[in-house]
Amino acid sequence: MQLIATFINYCFNQLIIMNSTGTNSTLDKNIVQEIKNICGESNVVSDIEGLESYGSDQTEALFFLPQLAIKPRTAEEISRVMRICNENNIPVTPRGAGTGLSGGALPHLGGVLISTERMNTIINIDLKNLQVVTEPGVITEVLQNAVKEQGLFYPPDPSSRGSCFIGGNIAENSGGPKAVKYGVVKDYVLNLEVVLPTGEIIWTGSDVLKNSTGYNLTQLIVGSEGTLGIVTKIVLKLIPHPKYDLLMLAPFDDVQKAGEAVSAVFRAGYTPSAMELVEIDALKIVSRFVGSSIVPVDDAVAAHLIIEVDGNDLDVLMKDMEGISEVLSEFGSGELFFAEDAAQKAELWKLRRRVAEAVKLDGFTIEEDTVVPRYELPALINGVKKLGVQYGFKAVCYGHAGDGNLHIRIKKEGTSNSQEDPLIIESLRALFRLVKDLGGTISGEHGIGLVQKDFMDIVFSNKQIALMRGIKKVFDPNNILNAGKIFD
Amino acid sequence: MQLIATFINYCFNQLIIMNSTGTNSTLDKNIVQEIKNICGESNVVSDIEGLESYGSDQTEALFFLPQLAIKPRTAEEISRVMRICNENNIPVTPRGAGTGLSGGALPHLGGVLISTERMNTIINIDLKNLQVVTEPGVITEVLQNAVKEQGLFYPPDPSSRGSCFIGGNIAENSGGPKAVKYGVVKDYVLNLEVVLPTGEIIWTGSDVLKNSTGYNLTQLIVGSEGTLGIVTKIVLKLIPHPKYDLLMLAPFDDVQKAGEAVSAVFRAGYTPSAMELVEIDALKIVSRFVGSSIVPVDDAVAAHLIIEVDGNDLDVLMKDMEGISEVLSEFGSGELFFAEDAAQKAELWKLRRRVAEAVKLDGFTIEEDTVVPRYELPALINGVKKLGVQYGFKAVCYGHAGDGNLHIRIKKEGTSNSQEDPLIIESLRALFRLVKDLGGTISGEHGIGLVQKDFMDIVFSNKQIALMRGIKKVFDPNNILNAGKIFD
Repeated sequence: MQLIATFINYCFNQLIIMNSTGTNSTLDKNIVQEIKNICGESNVVSDIEGLESYGSDQTEALFFLPQLAIKPRTAEEISRVMRICNENNIPVTPRGAGTGLSGGALPHLGGVLISTERMNTIINIDLKNLQVVTEPGVITEVLQNAVKEQGLFYPPDPSSRGSCFIGGNIAENSGGPKAVKYGVVKDYVLNLEVVLPTGEIIWTGSDVLKNSTGYNLTQLIVGSEGTLGIVTKIVLKLIPHPKYDLLMLAPFDDVQKAGEAVSAVFRAGYTPSAMELVEIDALKIVSRFVGSSIVPVDDAVAAHLIIEVDGNDLDVLMKDMEGISEVLSEFGSGELFFAEDAAQKAELWKLRRRVAEAVKLDGFTIEEDTVVPRYELPALINGVKKLGVQYGFKAVCYGHAGDGNLHIRIKKEGTSNSQEDPLIIESLRALFRLVKDLGGTISGEHGIGLVQKDFMDIVFSNKQIALMRGIKKVFDPNNILNAGKIFD
Repeated sequence: MQLIATFINYCFNQLIIMNSTGTNSTLDKNIVQEIKNICGESNVVSDIEGLESYGSDQTEALFFLPQLAIKPRTAEEISRVMRICNENNIPVTPRGAGTGLSGGALPHLGGVLISTERMNTIINIDLKNLQVVTEPGVITEVLQNAVKEQGLFYPPDPSSRGSCFIGGNIAENSGGPKAVKYGVVKDYVLNLEVVLPTGEIIWTGSDVLKNSTGYNLTQLIVGSEGTLGIVTKIVLKLIPHPKYDLLMLAPFDDVQKAGEAVSAVFRAGYTPSAMELVEIDALKIVSRFVGSSIVPVDDAVAAHLIIEVDGNDLDVLMKDMEGISEVLSEFGSGELFFAEDAAQKAELWKLRRRVAEAVKLDGFTIEEDTVVPRYELPALINGVKKLGVQYGFKAVCYGHAGDGNLHIRIKKEGTSNSQEDPLIIESLRALFRLVKDLGGTISGEHGIGLVQKDFMDIVFSNKQIALMRGIKKVFDPNNILNAGKIFD
């Protein structure tokens, strides 16, 4: 890190930038001054200490310094900066809160980093149409709370919702526990204001619930990981907030059986508002980490399902929980634990939400984000364990079982950085091939970014990638915006 | 029509095709024979009588003959035909059941028409994952009934569901009455097998509920009106079928008030499974048309709302209906009519579903498919009436009020074909400008096709259209597949 800092310092007044097309371009003093004139001197970061805070995200072991970081306030400012960068072939990396798990916000090519942190206003909660218009730098939970105060619900809730930005959620098409009933980010995005790599500002669609007018540019931008444009305003659909929810924890002594129960619950006609799975190792680690003893210690337990139902009628929810419990018992669930009050619910959710953080600190490396058809979950878990035996790693699984979206973290003694261990990379390829064979794919909600792109050939043919590259070129002819993410 | 037929007949063995790029190419006997070899002689239509049945859809006053119509059975056959057409610059038009309302399936450039009518197998109802895999030529209602037999629900239900194909629904991103609670086609499409204009066969995604792996090619194909590829297999998400539904009819003596009530119901926290509006003129016409007297005659009534709720608990539904009724009464609703049994429900739905057909026969011309934010519905209706006074036409409004998706048909004495009347075209431009001003857009569920493309400039800038054209070119470099639809 010191080496990079010294290098950056050394050549700061006349930086040589190698962009992804291989051409050299110069970010000279005049360009820096022009950008300062646009965004204001105090919103341009050029000192090493300042730049370092934009060099990493929640993806382990990756650090890249931008040459310049800017904190614009408006789409117009971004537009003007984009035009300069486009004309001068300067790489641009958009960044939300930096909570991403695939390196999507990392400035691996240097250049200008655009942080949306100052674009943090909820512009309008439209009670007449049940919509919200927001800037991208609003923290997801802040947005959720603001609409909840009006009796409204924006369901997508990634574990990082207390710190992530809604703009980043759009970029990665985030999910979270509620997705199983309510859908993911893409299901709530009606319209986006986007600054294109070439500087134009467009809206992708219209603020309507149904739209068959031209190609769906909105859904093309959602999940495109900041490679096609920078989202500057977001129109989201809202729904009435359900009045009640119930939460229970179901232990299983066999993780396979837990996985099978998940599919059976849905087949029986229930649609829980959350259906999460946490393996016992992960639960033990996170319980220690947050100092919780709410989950009874039982050495026979292999995994828990966390099941929530929500709605407007408490009797119906009680009946649903009874029905679900019956299904679970057919798969050998142990004694069910019902959260009695808001405090117990909050504690259980805290355990679930902080699993990733806890197991990461415990040495389990990069979080995989596999997703398979729901019924294939047991086969996936089984496959992960077999790969662990074969490649000598320990794996913990947790995630959104109801969606077939399983997070997997692995720990291999003697290996601190999985990305640099050829055997780990080989085992990940084997894992992703298994996922593909089960009808699934690499990422359910984290995106591809930098860390998964080498595996894209497993799930996509050359033609599919060529189509994506072609689309990228339509939006970004000079390949300056978040280039080298998703694919090279 | 006779003239066209004679012309086609005359030059059948050596057809001159003018494709949209302006180049001439020749569809000669050898190519026809090659196509016959691929699809089988009996699945290639080349006689005028046979071709005529592929010349029109449900869009008025448009008729175009293809030079050849084929009925392939497999994606592989389509792939081989596409390669030939691509190499020889022959226009290709994909067609489902021909129930479209925007001319999307019409072979306005001649060439080869590909009908999916023989690709009509439901491949697999996957009870374990609550998914269905189907070919595109399956009638939507047949698919709905097949999954309903298994307790499952595929909600999108355009009025034409008894005859339209699911493939056409994908092409247009269809909606229908249930969209207000359950979403439109795009919300159920998980994965698509697509034959590209260049002949390659790809899958757009993966059979999973969450996907953040690369650009969303699936949602790019949905609603692209057959311009980017021909859909040959479809994977749809299913949900448990609700056990009960209740239906009521609410009369209003003021159509504005009816529109205002719609928004208020949602603001009060209710999410009906249908919230339709039908103006009284349209209801009278359709009642006559189907010979129904279920709706009481009351000269004071200006419009009705048709409101359905569904779910698994009858008591909850009754309470919902009571709550909704209270909201309606605040907006001056008249005496509510509750459907007592399945027969009454079916009769009310028949009236709603056949409105378009009935008013069309009554002389109301091309169905507009405007969509605005829900709360703006009264302003839209009001605007339509004012335009009618200004331009001397009578308008009837009906449609999916809960989604802000209003169908408008107009009748102008002395004008049989609105497309050829400059004043009508001018009034439509004024209508679409109003829609745009209200935050809405041209089409909510019918698509742009041929008949709306001249109005695209009202809702899209040159840059937005340029992006769409660029995407089209990535998929279809020779512009052979459904060229000249959506945009020129």
